[in-house]
Amino acid sequence: MTMAKRDTYTPESLLAVAVTVFNERGYDGTSMEHLSKAAGISKSSIYHHVKGKEELLRLAISRALDGLFAVLDEPRAVSGRAIERLEYVTRRTVEVLMDELPYVTLLLRVRGNTDTERWAMERRREFDHQVAELLKRAAADGDLRPDVDVRLATRLLFGMINSVVEWYRPERGGATSEEVADAVVRTAFAGLRTAG
Amino acid sequence: MTMAKRDTYTPESLLAVAVTVFNERGYDGTSMEHLSKAAGISKSSIYHHVKGKEELLRLAISRALDGLFAVLDEPRAVSGRAIERLEYVTRRTVEVLMDELPYVTLLLRVRGNTDTERWAMERRREFDHQVAELLKRAAADGDLRPDVDVRLATRLLFGMINSVVEWYRPERGGATSEEVADAVVRTAFAGLRTAG
Repeated sequence: MTMAKRDTYTPESLLAVAVTVFNERGYDGTSMEHLSKAAGISKSSIYHHVKGKEELLRLAISRALDGLFAVLDEPRAVSGRAIERLEYVTRRTVEVLMDELPYVTLLLRVRGNTDTERWAMERRREFDHQVAELLKRAAADGDLRPDVDVRLATRLLFGMINSVVEWYRPERGGATSEEVADAVVRTAFAGLRTAG
Repeated sequence: MTMAKRDTYTPESLLAVAVTVFNERGYDGTSMEHLSKAAGISKSSIYHHVKGKEELLRLAISRALDGLFAVLDEPRAVSGRAIERLEYVTRRTVEVLMDELPYVTLLLRVRGNTDTERWAMERRREFDHQVAELLKRAAADGDLRPDVDVRLATRLLFGMINSVVEWYRPERGGATSEEVADAVVRTAFAGLRTAG
């Protein structure tokens, strides 16, 4: 029997604990027991907040997805030339990823064993699809190099964006989120090499 | 008691089975029992080939690392202008990753709980470091855009390269390994956007 602390959790603070545990152990490898230990409150206290671990997963994934999809509705994402919208969406996606690091990390790692995980993957594909549509329009406008394959380019763009979760650790200092977002946009669209 | 098949494994074919299981279950989550079931031979037959699962991990990781480090010794990687060497190394790294997909996938996923995993991470850092040195020389030659931060650029370059393991599935058709390698080199060095 572990000494439980008084349950002063808000939905947000309990979610933050759960996401940390999910990212450390994997969602599949996390039990209610692990969550209870990490939070320092009993399982029944957790059940007072949520129906179970799948609801915590859904809440966490929703937070990441809401942040990402909100980018697509921002003024600079919906009007203007497609290439400018695409660069804006890339920059903001990197910023959301860094602002909501544990939540987006969880989203990128889920693998589809439960309804919630399959829904997360489906929504993530939908986001990627909307960005791919912007790439297609930019190509039609003649703003992408003609040798660019849109499908491959979408994958490489997200490869670069999503890799940020592997090494960005705000607590360690280093590059600011603005510098990282700048570097991703410049590398993806202008390339590393001196022009000409 | 499971019916064991006759042990006709070579070191290579046993390794291929082990790597598949490591990638599916994670190295930590794999027991000798899992390996025995997947291979269809008894645990003692496996011990006839190797000392244990850590030796299988070391052999698999060595195969990935040998492929990657060999690239750095190829003629076009050691002579010529740094930017050309860098582009060549990028192309060949993508090719090795695709040719040795399960082995490099395992290398990219290990996390450092055993000596072998820590050695793998150390060697991987050494490889990244050598590529970063090429980036530095290319910058000194004036061949990288002056606003490029070498450390950040190295991370984004590997982010793009390594993301290929997430979606490249040769059995599904799609882009050839040459097309993928071309796309990575062009995206990273020339960017997606039409020049000028």
